[in-house]
Amino acid sequence: MTYQVGLLGLGTVGGGVAQILRDPAGRHPLLRELAIARVGVRDLAKPRAVAFDPQYLTTDLEAIVTDPDIDIVVEVLGGIEPARSLILKAIANGKHIVTANKAVIARHGAEIFDAANAQGVYVMLEAAVAGGIPVIQALKQSLGANRIHTITGILNGTTNYILTRMQQEQGDFAPILADAQRLGYAEADPSADIDGLDAADKIAILASLAFGGRIPRDQVYCEGIRQITAADIAYADKLGFRIKLLAIAHQASDQSLEVRVHPTLVPLDHPLAGVNGVFNAILLEATPLGQVMFSGPGAGAGATASAVVADLINIAALLPQGRASHPLLTCQHEHTVPLLPIAKVNSRFYARVHAQDHPGVLGKLGTCFGAHNVSLESLVQIGVHHELAEIVIVTHHVCEGEFRQAMAEISSMPDIEAVPSIVRVLGG
Amino acid sequence: MTYQVGLLGLGTVGGGVAQILRDPAGRHPLLRELAIARVGVRDLAKPRAVAFDPQYLTTDLEAIVTDPDIDIVVEVLGGIEPARSLILKAIANGKHIVTANKAVIARHGAEIFDAANAQGVYVMLEAAVAGGIPVIQALKQSLGANRIHTITGILNGTTNYILTRMQQEQGDFAPILADAQRLGYAEADPSADIDGLDAADKIAILASLAFGGRIPRDQVYCEGIRQITAADIAYADKLGFRIKLLAIAHQASDQSLEVRVHPTLVPLDHPLAGVNGVFNAILLEATPLGQVMFSGPGAGAGATASAVVADLINIAALLPQGRASHPLLTCQHEHTVPLLPIAKVNSRFYARVHAQDHPGVLGKLGTCFGAHNVSLESLVQIGVHHELAEIVIVTHHVCEGEFRQAMAEISSMPDIEAVPSIVRVLGG
Repeated sequence: MTYQVGLLGLGTVGGGVAQILRDPAGRHPLLRELAIARVGVRDLAKPRAVAFDPQYLTTDLEAIVTDPDIDIVVEVLGGIEPARSLILKAIANGKHIVTANKAVIARHGAEIFDAANAQGVYVMLEAAVAGGIPVIQALKQSLGANRIHTITGILNGTTNYILTRMQQEQGDFAPILADAQRLGYAEADPSADIDGLDAADKIAILASLAFGGRIPRDQVYCEGIRQITAADIAYADKLGFRIKLLAIAHQASDQSLEVRVHPTLVPLDHPLAGVNGVFNAILLEATPLGQVMFSGPGAGAGATASAVVADLINIAALLPQGRASHPLLTCQHEHTVPLLPIAKVNSRFYARVHAQDHPGVLGKLGTCFGAHNVSLESLVQIGVHHELAEIVIVTHHVCEGEFRQAMAEISSMPDIEAVPSIVRVLGG
Repeated sequence: MTYQVGLLGLGTVGGGVAQILRDPAGRHPLLRELAIARVGVRDLAKPRAVAFDPQYLTTDLEAIVTDPDIDIVVEVLGGIEPARSLILKAIANGKHIVTANKAVIARHGAEIFDAANAQGVYVMLEAAVAGGIPVIQALKQSLGANRIHTITGILNGTTNYILTRMQQEQGDFAPILADAQRLGYAEADPSADIDGLDAADKIAILASLAFGGRIPRDQVYCEGIRQITAADIAYADKLGFRIKLLAIAHQASDQSLEVRVHPTLVPLDHPLAGVNGVFNAILLEATPLGQVMFSGPGAGAGATASAVVADLINIAALLPQGRASHPLLTCQHEHTVPLLPIAKVNSRFYARVHAQDHPGVLGKLGTCFGAHNVSLESLVQIGVHHELAEIVIVTHHVCEGEFRQAMAEISSMPDIEAVPSIVRVLGG
């Protein structure tokens, strides 16, 4: 039995998928049951690393998702539209879906999974999060015995690459971003990566699987790395931390759920502190399992295509059963889980403050934090910067809303010239 | 629909499994479809952390594996017999099997999987390797698009705990083993762990899944950590290495397969160098994926029970289909893969030699290595030990057989008093 695959997109990932399917030797035997029937592209004339006979290529993507001969549609177009409409139309036509599209799933997952359940088809998305690291499969099939408490991930390779280089070169954000763009590690429009939107899409997907509910993407708190400076990285280093863009989902014992993305000071002895460059990593904490970590390449043709083809193999293994019914591979939840507003989340904070170098400034800061219930781990004047005292504050776990009120009050004190940075701190 | 589980063994892991199945809230909904019907124990009177009504307990383990009401048998007895016979009898009676028993699977997997295929039942073994780390599932279901080249694992928590303490305390093997036994991290008879047999069972299982053939367990090269001294760990540290007991499976481009367990000098910047204490980790290298690493707790009630219950959930998800037919969860290979003899394996080596402190000794060593085709990275007299010159040798990648011949010749030189240690070196 051969299953016909329609491929939407023949860019980096699509080309990688085609290469694997055409060269099955030494890979899983089920690959031989999968054949690419049609490939949808934007431009037929574009030169491609993976050559196809012209008869396979079409610019009519709708014709692929409605083709009665096609069993599985692989969507590797990226972006919201036309990907979302094509996925929905493919489902309506009874096709199983494999997608690498985190944005569509995080934002339109509800309608897509509702449609898939109604039609009895699978929607598989291993490639949407952390590239070749099989974390989706682990959450779906390997950790069901557990109550998961916390997912902490480095889910965006571009920002991790930039932060790693800033740390290693003691360089500032803007020139390293420009260099990353030149080298192809960052997009011409880098916003989705460096503003944390990509990581927020991914952590919303992981949280949905880990905590068994739909995650309102617009409630995911999201802060990127634009404001991180070489000075912050240097101070963090002195304090024993690396700065990483973390995506965190945490369910407290009262079942409240927080999902957030922000730069974070990670203690040097934490396993995520050593994950550098374009690598991704996910640390899961669960009962009774404890801590388990996955790390590897989060992007790139090979890693992402590996995940897409894994999904194809898993569908091919189940296709003889007909209608999608495997309870671990279909979406079983339909309720939405509201998220805790960021103001109610507890975190540790690092802040840097520039103040007039007057006696009593530290005392005023300490008093203000105390009045707002903010317990401090340290409050240190670490130097003088342009004749201003540079003060670094590290808190214990405090309520974000109360910390922000204290910082607002501090910002308006006459002795305070500036608050150049506030960054959350992991653990402690 | 409720599926009836027969539990063979109510020790640490069996108790952990029972606790999870009795407390399904907040875990996967499929857990509610699994009920423990009977529990086989050796001693009915023994006090247990997990209490069962006496009517559930029996010392007649055969009655469980032949009970027509039981759908799935969980074997967490450990050891070869009676585990092997009970598993085979359960299969003959049409039961699906979940086992945590690496020794039985590594040594008797062929007859067990043949019997299971003939009867149409699943034999699941996530818990047999690396406890709660879902590496079996990853190999079965997530990496099929890849050609796997190398698996490098820290698969035995006891030896990693001992080596970590030796490194941190600059202590010798025997007293730390004794302390580990006192603390419950090592067995009264520690041989399976410290002689590498447990790790060899586990890497044989991983190699079988990764390379798609049956692995002759008696051909797996196996060397434990008894001979590692505080001096070796200190020298390794100076050279930029940690000593770890590694389990390695590597398929070369000519398809020859080597599977081996031995202490190894691991470069400090290698991801496995930082895996300490009882933690396990597995690094997989594959095309096109690249490197992906899994780490977490390799043993303990919670981690191992998490894996056992994951397998139960996966079976429960497929039971409505009847006879075991999922091609990713049944054993599809029947041929045996012969292993490369250790003498033909290429490795780097570290060796320590005690020699008379005469001029020309280094030259004689260098000449001997050269005559045997052994290319050296360094050959250094690093000090004097009881009036003997202490010489440390590090080679490039060399053929083990040729290196051993050179070392045999060196050992018999009149200037050479002793060769206190030879340890393989990773990478380079």
